[in-house]
Amino acid sequence: MDRLIEAIDNTQNPSVVGLDPTEALVPPQVVASFADEVRDSVESPEELESAQLAVAYFEYNRTIIDAIADIVPAVKPQIAMYEALGPAGVDIYTMTCEYANQQGLYVLGDIKRGDIGSTAAAYAHHLNGVGDFDPWHEDAVTVNPYLGTDGITPFVEAATEADKDIFVLVRTSNPSSSELQMLDLADGTKVYEHVADLVEGWGAETIGDHGYSRVGAVVGATHPEEGKALRARMPHTFFLVPGYGAQGGTAADVAGMFDEQGSGAIVNSSRGIIGAWKKSGKYSESMTADEALGLVADSARQAALDMRDNLRVAVYR
Amino acid sequence: MDRLIEAIDNTQNPSVVGLDPTEALVPPQVVASFADEVRDSVESPEELESAQLAVAYFEYNRTIIDAIADIVPAVKPQIAMYEALGPAGVDIYTMTCEYANQQGLYVLGDIKRGDIGSTAAAYAHHLNGVGDFDPWHEDAVTVNPYLGTDGITPFVEAATEADKDIFVLVRTSNPSSSELQMLDLADGTKVYEHVADLVEGWGAETIGDHGYSRVGAVVGATHPEEGKALRARMPHTFFLVPGYGAQGGTAADVAGMFDEQGSGAIVNSSRGIIGAWKKSGKYSESMTADEALGLVADSARQAALDMRDNLRVAVYR
Repeated sequence: MDRLIEAIDNTQNPSVVGLDPTEALVPPQVVASFADEVRDSVESPEELESAQLAVAYFEYNRTIIDAIADIVPAVKPQIAMYEALGPAGVDIYTMTCEYANQQGLYVLGDIKRGDIGSTAAAYAHHLNGVGDFDPWHEDAVTVNPYLGTDGITPFVEAATEADKDIFVLVRTSNPSSSELQMLDLADGTKVYEHVADLVEGWGAETIGDHGYSRVGAVVGATHPEEGKALRARMPHTFFLVPGYGAQGGTAADVAGMFDEQGSGAIVNSSRGIIGAWKKSGKYSESMTADEALGLVADSARQAALDMRDNLRVAVYR
Repeated sequence: MDRLIEAIDNTQNPSVVGLDPTEALVPPQVVASFADEVRDSVESPEELESAQLAVAYFEYNRTIIDAIADIVPAVKPQIAMYEALGPAGVDIYTMTCEYANQQGLYVLGDIKRGDIGSTAAAYAHHLNGVGDFDPWHEDAVTVNPYLGTDGITPFVEAATEADKDIFVLVRTSNPSSSELQMLDLADGTKVYEHVADLVEGWGAETIGDHGYSRVGAVVGATHPEEGKALRARMPHTFFLVPGYGAQGGTAADVAGMFDEQGSGAIVNSSRGIIGAWKKSGKYSESMTADEALGLVADSARQAALDMRDNLRVAVYR
């Protein structure tokens, strides 16, 4: 986790921007501007919509990356948004990761993969590539713990080999997360606490210069008390904290998930940053695609600065 | 689940062939035969290996599909094996799904996705596509339950819209699966039993003509007693049963996961079918690529027939 921690130190900003484009988040004139370019490249008329969205997503992501690369340490593209468009979207996901990497950002691939041993080893190539070829350009990926240790170990090994990291789901930010994660176990703990203990153990052999292992945990901003307790329970586990902003989490909610030095966590905001243009009051349908992208950039940068400043006040005590 | 159940009835064969190619499973002369074709299409020399494997995987899959399409109802490509090669591999995954579909097979995409509500809705486009465009060509996908109901509902809705199905992980076949799934809850049940009850509920509104819902469950062949108990606990839930063959499960082990009519489950074998050529005793390094693929085909067909016959004896009582 050292590379991420150092990137956070360099920017004095423990936040990560979620690159989760949707049709509703990209200004329509940007999507429309790619109509001609795409028409010649698709094999059938049905593909037109997804192909057009895919190229628009890349332009939108590039605009946002350029607007924030000097003030945030990391981005977190959510692969689901790209898979929604089919393989053309997956191409855009990897191009986005590559471009963000080239701009010096740590790329956290939110892929939430998880499977049994040999299959997990195949997924782990997200981190260690194929020979010298790194098709995914991710610095870390998120992983699901439901399969247990043999589904996690291949990711830890690949991360170690490639100087990368993973983040395991522990306590997610969504409303239904409690259905499984909060169940009371016979030994008096809860399911997510048991998972937390497993995660701390999975990372034990990979603790870096800053005291955190390569195996992080996903802990939702919407659970401030549990997050604070997990901070104490998992002293060597770095937290990825989703659920800030649009999902309801505040800087005060996440403060307890940081350690006494103001390290130990990175907070994600997606819509709050990349969709800030929609709340700017400055958008108009008559804007050109370039004007709309300019507004996306300015709004995203301002929202990222606001988030940084709010976190600095709450966290760097 | 009606389409799958009818395909099983038509073949009198409750088995699914896992299309999980790896470098070790594809005869080396088949991989080598694509060296020239690939060299001109890659952007950098580092990509050569993965690009060559990707086209070899498709040729291998097509050979196996052609060899078994008349005797099995379904195939289950494991997307991890394709993602291991990067986006080029993902393209091959969708081409494999499409080809299998064209040959009349029900395609069960083993993608084990799972995320919070809005993100799950993005993943659910695996099932309902983008407008009229279906880029993935899957008839069902596997889903992870760790996020709870709001991570599942979008898949159920997309499946209903597109006349497709999902299978939720309940009790997986791998050794470490017990670490979470077998934990004792305070109410006397185990975690996987609680998940089983959720799954039965998630499907309740989608029960089809044959008495099973669109929400199936993944129950490993390596847990025969638990599988039998789950069969009784989940009367409207169809089972996908991995872990047969190479992972140790036998026809006797899975018999209890079927209902009294011999329906209610489909059993997967991957390596036992697609890697049968390696145990045939007939392979030689001097074979041409076509000869090697011929052996792959003959061995896969024979292994699929053997599995079918073993299951028929054990299941159709």
